[in-house]
Amino acid sequence: MGFEGRDILSTEDFTKDEILEIMEVSARMEELARTKGVSNLLSDKIVAVIFLEPSTRTRLSFETAIRRLGAGCITVADAKTSSAAKGETLADTARTIEGYVDCIIVRQPMIGGAKLMADAVSVPVINGGDGPGQHPTQALLDLYTIKKETGRLEQLKVAMVGDLKYGRTVHSLSYALAPFLPERYIFCAPDALQMPKNIVADMKAKGITCQQTSGLEDALEADILYMTRIQRERFDNPADYEKLKGSYILTREILEKGNKEITVMHPLPRVDEISTDVDDLPNAAYFRQAHNGVFLRMALLAMIMGRA
Amino acid sequence: MGFEGRDILSTEDFTKDEILEIMEVSARMEELARTKGVSNLLSDKIVAVIFLEPSTRTRLSFETAIRRLGAGCITVADAKTSSAAKGETLADTARTIEGYVDCIIVRQPMIGGAKLMADAVSVPVINGGDGPGQHPTQALLDLYTIKKETGRLEQLKVAMVGDLKYGRTVHSLSYALAPFLPERYIFCAPDALQMPKNIVADMKAKGITCQQTSGLEDALEADILYMTRIQRERFDNPADYEKLKGSYILTREILEKGNKEITVMHPLPRVDEISTDVDDLPNAAYFRQAHNGVFLRMALLAMIMGRA
Amino acid sequence: MGFEGRDILSTEDFTKDEILEIMEVSARMEELARTKGVSNLLSDKIVAVIFLEPSTRTRLSFETAIRRLGAGCITVADAKTSSAAKGETLADTARTIEGYVDCIIVRQPMIGGAKLMADAVSVPVINGGDGPGQHPTQALLDLYTIKKETGRLEQLKVAMVGDLKYGRTVHSLSYALAPFLPERYIFCAPDALQMPKNIVADMKAKGITCQQTSGLEDALEADILYMTRIQRERFDNPADYEKLKGSYILTREILEKGNKEITVMHPLPRVDEISTDVDDLPNAAYFRQAHNGVFLRMALLAMIMGRA
Repeated sequence: MGFEGRDILSTEDFTKDEILEIMEVSARMEELARTKGVSNLLSDKIVAVIFLEPSTRTRLSFETAIRRLGAGCITVADAKTSSAAKGETLADTARTIEGYVDCIIVRQPMIGGAKLMADAVSVPVINGGDGPGQHPTQALLDLYTIKKETGRLEQLKVAMVGDLKYGRTVHSLSYALAPFLPERYIFCAPDALQMPKNIVADMKAKGITCQQTSGLEDALEADILYMTRIQRERFDNPADYEKLKGSYILTREILEKGNKEITVMHPLPRVDEISTDVDDLPNAAYFRQAHNGVFLRMALLAMIMGRA
Repeated sequence: MGFEGRDILSTEDFTKDEILEIMEVSARMEELARTKGVSNLLSDKIVAVIFLEPSTRTRLSFETAIRRLGAGCITVADAKTSSAAKGETLADTARTIEGYVDCIIVRQPMIGGAKLMADAVSVPVINGGDGPGQHPTQALLDLYTIKKETGRLEQLKVAMVGDLKYGRTVHSLSYALAPFLPERYIFCAPDALQMPKNIVADMKAKGITCQQTSGLEDALEADILYMTRIQRERFDNPADYEKLKGSYILTREILEKGNKEITVMHPLPRVDEISTDVDDLPNAAYFRQAHNGVFLRMALLAMIMGRA
Repeated sequence: MGFEGRDILSTEDFTKDEILEIMEVSARMEELARTKGVSNLLSDKIVAVIFLEPSTRTRLSFETAIRRLGAGCITVADAKTSSAAKGETLADTARTIEGYVDCIIVRQPMIGGAKLMADAVSVPVINGGDGPGQHPTQALLDLYTIKKETGRLEQLKVAMVGDLKYGRTVHSLSYALAPFLPERYIFCAPDALQMPKNIVADMKAKGITCQQTSGLEDALEADILYMTRIQRERFDNPADYEKLKGSYILTREILEKGNKEITVMHPLPRVDEISTDVDDLPNAAYFRQAHNGVFLRMALLAMIMGRA
């Protein structure tokens, strides 16, 4: 199959075997980071981290991955200081930067923007989020977390809670996990924020049982409980938001009614949808999930630069 | 006593012996930086520099220290691009980042914010300034400068000039130097900006003679003349500011009337409270003081990561 | 002649022989970057990149050069987060930072600002652009590009197109190339944006034939076609801008009427003054030109730090 020189643009670009290979390399990278701290695997490489939309968590995770592989890093952390502000196209930005570096990581707000850059250059491009489009490294680190927490990717009951209509991460996760034939997806959201019909249809077409519910209690028997934030801005009527919000807040008390082995995940940052009294439970995997992002990104960087 | 794994939150956390140990390690780090440029003492470590309040001088000093120790660095230089802007708590930010790095340095505006982060994580946290609270690395680099310039920390006459009411650095310096029993503190400020009564009382209780004055000439016989800026914003009446300001500007002419061996310090940036004609005098230690910050910060980083 | 410890402030500081030496070292650095990726030539050095005016392209190019030489880098990418915002002078900023690093690269908006900093400190300073003043590394990378593309710096017909009145790069290029006695300069611009009279007079005094024209077709027989952007803000009357703009847009169709061997350059970012259908022609050198900036900057850094 071969990852060397390949762009990482969309979760759907990968076969099941490729995802499994990425999981394996991520585990090796985790071992490398834990034993050596900083490796010299990519010590002859420079990577550009171009974040035209702010995202500290994702940016720092990528930069940590770059440094733990021994590579150098050049960074744009703020669109306002960039050439884009002078009217330059994404393709021109990419063609300029490709002469500086060995790989480009980009986050920007336009769907397809990362692909447009990838098409313009010969160095590999990683999509670090293209607005409401794709964020493939998030979906892959979610899979890596699921595998580490539960020991498997197959035969899982996966509940997704919160804003399923606009939530990019739950859309990507649904597709990314589908090749592993989950036993069931439980889509738990207020009616106005339920999973888009076309995604539910796609999942059913793949033979996955999809349960749609508005009650958080239906999610508690899952193996994976994937929480997301409900944003006030999604509601026309603030009162609707206030009324609904409380129904999707996970507390220790609620959690203790469900599957004792449940793994609670969240893409972070959270606001208040998971009560802090959950944090110290062994089930709370969301900080480990964030940490896993470093290992997953190390794996992808090493693979596309032909060193894994 | 043991520094490994320890947080650096407040100047008052250190015993006299610990301060002396920090001074010794700083001197070794200065030697290391001067002879090797960049060491590999921490070449397997990554440090996060999270500045949610801008401060170029302090940030660059920390980053230089990190690089001169061979460590990698991930940086947030601007609160607006951070997850804090999405409503994340400091504790959550810390718990996420602790999975990326071996040490967290944080500057943010809330008193106690650094401690709150330190309490949430297992990696050591260095307080790079928590608003009007503590800025322990500044106080320690001030001590290191005093020791280098005068050869000692004991039996000193130390004059502090300017805004003693709100000036965080002079408060911290007063406490940090107290264990070394200064011969006298000379607090020189307009009445409205004099040293807070509780601090003067604390110093007297430690047996230190405290002289309070509004005349700059009283400060000129000290061993250390620590200048600070008087900020216009502290005055209700701009005319009061203009009138007073001139009385606390140090010029070469004024300085030549005092102790020929006096050491002039300033936390920088200065505006006009030290005339530039002072800069070339051997007494002008304020730029050396800024440079010492790198060695002091190298020392703390090496010590808390168990490598000094 | 000796480059060690020298400031890089203005293109006019260099003799013809020095420029040739810089070209030779740049070629060696290009070879080094292509074969090794990252060298350890400056692995004991730290460089400050202080950009008080945003310029992603130039900043990232310098940072890439620093990293490909194995040096460490501390960065200010945004004036708003800097001490300058607290009223500090450029000289004070420089005197503080010189204690951190081995070299300072600065971009800021005031003519002469880089020289002012260089005069204040003992470490070498590189001017990364001082507003409408000098941008010497741009002029030198333009020469390096001309030499690589045409095989020579002598006996060239060089057309400059666009805003020649305010365009800093074309002013610098005119002077930088003058010692190599170009056969002819073709200054192609609307009358209101023609090359300043004093520059034309200077060039004529050096024995260079200068042709002034408003027709793009006159530029097409040159060896070098140096395109620049015409900014809307330069015109009192927007209609004048719209009318003129179209006359200075280079398309593939226009280019095919001229010298088949012509080298098309542009300092980038472009907006629409070069049509994207030109990009894939072998004549389109502007992205290679941007990439050359890394090698040229590696050369200067290595030379002034005594390692080339």
